[in-house]
Amino acid sequence: MNFSQLTQQIYRKKSFLCVGLDSDISKIPAHLLDNEDPVYEFNKAIIDATADFCISYKPNTAFYESRGLSGWRSLEKTIVYLNEKYPDHFTIADAKRGDIGNTSNQYAKAFLEQLNFDSVTVAPYMGSDSVKPFLEIKNKWVIMLALTSNPGAFDFQTNILNNGEELYKKVLRESLKWGHKENLMYVVGATKAEMLKDIRKIVPESFLLVPGVGAQGGSLAEVVKYGKTKEVGLIINSSRGIIFKDDSIRFAEAAAEEAHKIQKEMEALL
Amino acid sequence: MNFSQLTQQIYRKKSFLCVGLDSDISKIPAHLLDNEDPVYEFNKAIIDATADFCISYKPNTAFYESRGLSGWRSLEKTIVYLNEKYPDHFTIADAKRGDIGNTSNQYAKAFLEQLNFDSVTVAPYMGSDSVKPFLEIKNKWVIMLALTSNPGAFDFQTNILNNGEELYKKVLRESLKWGHKENLMYVVGATKAEMLKDIRKIVPESFLLVPGVGAQGGSLAEVVKYGKTKEVGLIINSSRGIIFKDDSIRFAEAAAEEAHKIQKEMEALL
Repeated sequence: MNFSQLTQQIYRKKSFLCVGLDSDISKIPAHLLDNEDPVYEFNKAIIDATADFCISYKPNTAFYESRGLSGWRSLEKTIVYLNEKYPDHFTIADAKRGDIGNTSNQYAKAFLEQLNFDSVTVAPYMGSDSVKPFLEIKNKWVIMLALTSNPGAFDFQTNILNNGEELYKKVLRESLKWGHKENLMYVVGATKAEMLKDIRKIVPESFLLVPGVGAQGGSLAEVVKYGKTKEVGLIINSSRGIIFKDDSIRFAEAAAEEAHKIQKEMEALL
Repeated sequence: MNFSQLTQQIYRKKSFLCVGLDSDISKIPAHLLDNEDPVYEFNKAIIDATADFCISYKPNTAFYESRGLSGWRSLEKTIVYLNEKYPDHFTIADAKRGDIGNTSNQYAKAFLEQLNFDSVTVAPYMGSDSVKPFLEIKNKWVIMLALTSNPGAFDFQTNILNNGEELYKKVLRESLKWGHKENLMYVVGATKAEMLKDIRKIVPESFLLVPGVGAQGGSLAEVVKYGKTKEVGLIINSSRGIIFKDDSIRFAEAAAEEAHKIQKEMEALL
């Protein structure tokens, strides 16, 4: 999926919502646990219920890897299901990988070819040769961590360099030498929405994947105010707030209601 | 395995060598490809041949994930084999993970509990709450990226902060608030061995995992000169230089010869 296709989806559905499939097996409704693959059944139900209200799905690999081989199988089945049934939804492997060049190349294969996600999240600490191999895969996207939404973001990301610039801004600027708005997006947390103003000076048109709206306290209106571009340029993620809204047999219905509520807010802001 | 047990292994075997199991299926000897699980057969042969000369094994997860479910199965079988047959060898999941707190907790489960590695490598960009969940698992280790051996290390890690300190030194110093030499080691590249002198001022007794000796040009003698402590405090990794030394039917013998050669150099330096 390319930049303009993604933008078209956003306008068509009047939504820039991504549903995070952080499908922790200890939190899914108890009645699903009798299935052969409870997490896959959970994901399918959540996807079917929310597909009309969102434009993207983002499984976080940690919640699958923690269950070993059977977890990896749930992940594989989920992306196959998405690619077959919902090919217009933008898929994100939230894997936060990054290694030396020939090794990052293997991770790029894993997520963008073998599993066939549209995009993968990548950590920037190891620099250019850890990110570039992901960018070399045609028609796919890298989503690089810039400013994350967790408390630890302030340990290093906001450290000020000797030229007066914060590290995450240097990361954003450097990355423009490696990719462009057609193959590179950024993770930018919503905990301090006004920081988006500065970020937009460096990456005026790139897509930003914004976690931390809702449950973690970020305001949707603030993110749109400071981060929206003329082509929208925003994908807002919500995970637990949607998928674990209700743990009874009506979990999928509750997830749909929550996703619909957010979609309506987004529609009003577009 | 705790600090003193690891140190004892090093003195007993007169070696601080780690063999990196970057078992790229496109590089293993052709005659193994007929096996049901060629990578596992390759790993077993390499492990059996080199076990006397090294104290640690480090599979890099990228080379397994790139093969999807069957790759994850090879990884799982490899760690089971190591834990059963070579319980005295220190095992490292070279996974370079890191995410927000509750997600890092899932990665910690994946590698330190589910797969039962002794340790896992972790990226520091997301700060304290991305690293701490790994440190909470008893009798296990975190190996945090500090200064890596790739060209991209100079993009951000060596950036100078406004207090005059390089970023990787800040990372080292901050991490001392989260863990200690009994549960926290650091990845420090060998491309500029004299940098170890400064690093030892910050983490005087911690173990350092040093990649990039040999194939990537680092000198073993230099690393020992600047990095060795009174309890050694070094684990030196070699991957391709050992495991892909020869691609004929005598690949394991060639790997053993190379590992033995490095062990003898280490013995002379201890």
